[in-house]
Amino acid sequence: MSEVIINDLTVRDIRFPTSIELSGSDAMNVDPDYSAAYVTIHTSDTDLVGHGLTFTIGRGTEVVVLACKALKYLVVGKTLKSLTQDMGATWRMITSDSQLRWIGPEKGVIHLATAAIVNALWDLYAKSEKKPLWKLLVDMTPEELVSCIDFRYITDAITPQEAIHILKSNQDSKNQRVAEMLKDGLPAYTTSAGWLGYSDDKIKTLCREALDQGWNYFKIKVGRDVNDDVRRMRIIREEIGYERKLMVDANQWWDVNEAIEHMKVLSEFKPWWIEEPTSPDDILGHATIAKALAPYGIGVATGEHCANRVMFKQLLQANAIKFCQIDSCRLGGVNEVLSVLLMAKKFNIPVCPHAGGVGLCEYVQHLSLFDYVSVSATLEDRIVEYVDHLHEHFVNPCVIVNGKYVPPTEPGYSITIREQSLNDHEYPNGSVWTRVNQI
Amino acid sequence: MSEVIINDLTVRDIRFPTSIELSGSDAMNVDPDYSAAYVTIHTSDTDLVGHGLTFTIGRGTEVVVLACKALKYLVVGKTLKSLTQDMGATWRMITSDSQLRWIGPEKGVIHLATAAIVNALWDLYAKSEKKPLWKLLVDMTPEELVSCIDFRYITDAITPQEAIHILKSNQDSKNQRVAEMLKDGLPAYTTSAGWLGYSDDKIKTLCREALDQGWNYFKIKVGRDVNDDVRRMRIIREEIGYERKLMVDANQWWDVNEAIEHMKVLSEFKPWWIEEPTSPDDILGHATIAKALAPYGIGVATGEHCANRVMFKQLLQANAIKFCQIDSCRLGGVNEVLSVLLMAKKFNIPVCPHAGGVGLCEYVQHLSLFDYVSVSATLEDRIVEYVDHLHEHFVNPCVIVNGKYVPPTEPGYSITIREQSLNDHEYPNGSVWTRVNQI
Repeated sequence: MSEVIINDLTVRDIRFPTSIELSGSDAMNVDPDYSAAYVTIHTSDTDLVGHGLTFTIGRGTEVVVLACKALKYLVVGKTLKSLTQDMGATWRMITSDSQLRWIGPEKGVIHLATAAIVNALWDLYAKSEKKPLWKLLVDMTPEELVSCIDFRYITDAITPQEAIHILKSNQDSKNQRVAEMLKDGLPAYTTSAGWLGYSDDKIKTLCREALDQGWNYFKIKVGRDVNDDVRRMRIIREEIGYERKLMVDANQWWDVNEAIEHMKVLSEFKPWWIEEPTSPDDILGHATIAKALAPYGIGVATGEHCANRVMFKQLLQANAIKFCQIDSCRLGGVNEVLSVLLMAKKFNIPVCPHAGGVGLCEYVQHLSLFDYVSVSATLEDRIVEYVDHLHEHFVNPCVIVNGKYVPPTEPGYSITIREQSLNDHEYPNGSVWTRVNQI
Repeated sequence: MSEVIINDLTVRDIRFPTSIELSGSDAMNVDPDYSAAYVTIHTSDTDLVGHGLTFTIGRGTEVVVLACKALKYLVVGKTLKSLTQDMGATWRMITSDSQLRWIGPEKGVIHLATAAIVNALWDLYAKSEKKPLWKLLVDMTPEELVSCIDFRYITDAITPQEAIHILKSNQDSKNQRVAEMLKDGLPAYTTSAGWLGYSDDKIKTLCREALDQGWNYFKIKVGRDVNDDVRRMRIIREEIGYERKLMVDANQWWDVNEAIEHMKVLSEFKPWWIEEPTSPDDILGHATIAKALAPYGIGVATGEHCANRVMFKQLLQANAIKFCQIDSCRLGGVNEVLSVLLMAKKFNIPVCPHAGGVGLCEYVQHLSLFDYVSVSATLEDRIVEYVDHLHEHFVNPCVIVNGKYVPPTEPGYSITIREQSLNDHEYPNGSVWTRVNQI
């Protein structure tokens, strides 16, 4: 183990032409081509390779790829052990490069690239320990977990001592929850029925299929036109009834007051949460919206575009969110996610990860399993997003049974894409793209 | 005019090896190589070329260069008039690309690239009108200015009507202030004496030189070690006395509570402001620090890393800053700066732009001239940063006389770099870099 050396780090620009079918269309993101900057960490042990990706939606993936290459020099040439023995220091080292920090700091392109590399390191680490990532985390002591976190800028919300205390309080009952998860799986919700680009008939059909599959939580996209939203929510409520939960997602479409007015109209259909009502940077705006919508029983959810732990800290401090939607690769990888899971626990806010895209479902199942087993110890109000797209490209795709994620058992972070899929979808010269461009 | 077409947009990676002399070193940025992603917009009129840059500090400049190239398709092929006749729509178009938005939104690399392109457009616009940028802005009507702003996400703080009202209230006295500026210049402060890397003797010498040059406001870097800060502040106060203003800058070094404790110690030396005490993303943290330090007469200043107008809006709403330090190219160019100037006016907070680096002094003089003439109409507590670095590379460098900026009179945004400097400093193959790499 101690002699495994990081020999190289390569990055590929992988894009799926999803915009052709309007899968994934919402108010803000009208024509996404689900994409990834895909990182491979090569080691001196040819059987030990780490994979990580960051999710993008087409143009600009090449920019994230180049950012990964800019960070590469920070890990190549080091031993795996020197990086994993103090994961907190490793994360600080990657996010604090004295020149690259300027083009963030800890946000946007450079932080997306950080996530791909950090997640690839965790994949490598978990594989070297022959455990799925969630189990690697679950098996760590509270002290080991806390040492993975960079507490810079969050000590006014949570200290390392408080974090250790939270983790210790759940230690004794961990195995029970591991067994429960392996038996029952992790509750999930589906976004597959509710994209803006779909026809009414397609929505109805998808709802019925989802009910047949055992789903109890549904989410749809809203925002552009209130009358259209009313019509679509009515259709869905007719299909799923009021005993199941329905969430709506505006993808940052509104200003603060618009969000409040629009949601008052939609309150008729009893949405459980409104997701991304406004700018992801507007902590105080989310707090204003949360306060205004609380009397209607609507909670505010956000996080898929929340740049880092400092922003999540404030969303929690300001009572701006009722649901905390971490993103596995907009946050700077596993380490930063750990800090947010612990802050959310301290503020008593459930974490319901953002997923979908490409690879996000594969990633977040690990994070929520760890959250339940080691941090929150409750499933109340905790559901993980699931979207039925592009899983076939993964070597170990996530598995959903009866609306629940089945815990992965293969070593690693489940993010390895099949070699054939990589070759076909590499942009711009993969066969899929040469074909699209001929049409 | 109406037939000027944007034919091409080119981008160069320009770096100055400033880390060799530790010019510009601070607690967080220990070895910057002042750099720029330098954009040139070519038009069908060969005499009409627009320039814009975004400031970076070395590694990662190539990532911003690639982001500029990703945005290029949004402006090339269009007429200049189609872009300038509705600058607000143009800005929204550039910042809302349905795929590129994902890798921001409106922050980090993609927003830095946006700034370079947007500023190049304004440079082109001002040159086509044969006016320096500040005069182009000053000559616009309130309605024209407000139409340049994207009010998305800020209408809860300022509406277009309120912005027009602010601008109208200063209309009649504008010419008076233009004349005053042309006669007296714009008050500035110097950061040249206070970098962390300098010896005590160098600090003393630089202080004396600055006093001889007529400076009345001084800023130094602090943060890493409280005893070292005390020693350096004592030296500087001995040199400049207490009748002049002294500001300190921690460059994001502290957590919230550390900032408060450290600054209580330094309060002995009566700093006027503490700049960047903590994470630039921590609005609530800045508010906590501001409240704690107010009894000591120390104001909080931040903004050079403030990602966008939504973050500035909240800093103002939360009473988190006493000084608003806009950055000319971390904000998405002139349009977004206009929105922040108007919000700051509404909240009665002075704008003291961040400058230094490469080109920032050349940029911000225009913004503060406009702010004084058309928005704030007062100079109280308003000073513009000045650092004596790298001005010799500009075709129209800023001019300082007696600690004041002399208003530029050449058409454009003063950001054109000399061709020889570009060739010498292009990374990695310019002659300066081939020489550095041989040492």
